[in-house]
Amino acid sequence: MSTSSTVQHVKNANADHVTSFGLKGSLALPPAKRVAVLTCMDARLDPAKFAGLAEGDAHVIRNAGGRASDDAIRSLVISYKLLGTKEFIVIHHTDCGMVTFNNQIMTDLLAKSLEQAVIDENGWRDVGQGPGSPEGGKIEWLTFTDDDQAVIDDVKKIRNHPLVPKSIPIHGFIYDVRTGQLNEVSGATAAGQAS
Amino acid sequence: MSTSSTVQHVKNANADHVTSFGLKGSLALPPAKRVAVLTCMDARLDPAKFAGLAEGDAHVIRNAGGRASDDAIRSLVISYKLLGTKEFIVIHHTDCGMVTFNNQIMTDLLAKSLEQAVIDENGWRDVGQGPGSPEGGKIEWLTFTDDDQAVIDDVKKIRNHPLVPKSIPIHGFIYDVRTGQLNEVSGATAAGQAS
Repeated sequence: MSTSSTVQHVKNANADHVTSFGLKGSLALPPAKRVAVLTCMDARLDPAKFAGLAEGDAHVIRNAGGRASDDAIRSLVISYKLLGTKEFIVIHHTDCGMVTFNNQIMTDLLAKSLEQAVIDENGWRDVGQGPGSPEGGKIEWLTFTDDDQAVIDDVKKIRNHPLVPKSIPIHGFIYDVRTGQLNEVSGATAAGQAS
Repeated sequence: MSTSSTVQHVKNANADHVTSFGLKGSLALPPAKRVAVLTCMDARLDPAKFAGLAEGDAHVIRNAGGRASDDAIRSLVISYKLLGTKEFIVIHHTDCGMVTFNNQIMTDLLAKSLEQAVIDENGWRDVGQGPGSPEGGKIEWLTFTDDDQAVIDDVKKIRNHPLVPKSIPIHGFIYDVRTGQLNEVSGATAAGQAS
């Protein structure tokens, strides 16, 4: 199999990384800053850069939307219970793709074709030739319509989860992809309670 | 509520980030390198650095273990279907916390206490005072015992998912946290097939 140009780029960049790796090989497994960040997979977000987190500092959990999915909560519970984090930060962002569709739109798009859809002023539409799959209808895509409310909802879902200790503070932010600024979402943050 | 020192650190680092943000505010939503990376939340991993991915280049999905969970697949499907990625890279790593426990161990630990557990030569044990919760028994924790096999399994799970087009190549790597090196897992990578 031929190696794609992207994978070749990754391999070349990694060779440089190894050369300058220095003392990072002795970093401990538990995060030094005892914090876990949950954020979106969006390509414009680099949490290490925008939140000042060096290698070894923080767990970083990312998915489409930065949502408090069951899997994100699995990761957060492992993070505090086994690896000692004591604080969670949920960070969504402006201009998120998750506000451009909903379960029905995604289900219809996937039913028609598995190829890439396109978006214009009338919304998403399929341009691919099938085949599609009805399986999209079985997935909760975790889209949202209100940026602030989605952060509030996700912090609340984590706060109320039976496996998350009440002592863990959970902060809610939105990252502005136009300015690089983190803005705290009013009413989102859930303080840790003395146990 | 008082701001924790960690959140204050994040805010200060972010202020510096905004100052040097430059032209990044005009980056497009779809990833420029048309690739999505699935990797572990581990604090020692910085995919931007170890794979040479700048802001705007790639979707990055992260969870405990870098596993192909249902939620990771939700994210990957959104990544290619709506945002045009054409290649996936699964990256696990050496010294992963996910090999130190299994579903039964985690369920027992959480049933006893929600506080941090400790590990020694006899394995994990709880030192916290309760209360615990039985809810841990309802979660598939996605632990593994063999590093290579876990990558192979995750690539296969994505390859065989009905919503993932056969045309997308899926690569499997393990990142060595001691050296910074990405090593391709023999037998993991699934080539894209002409459609």
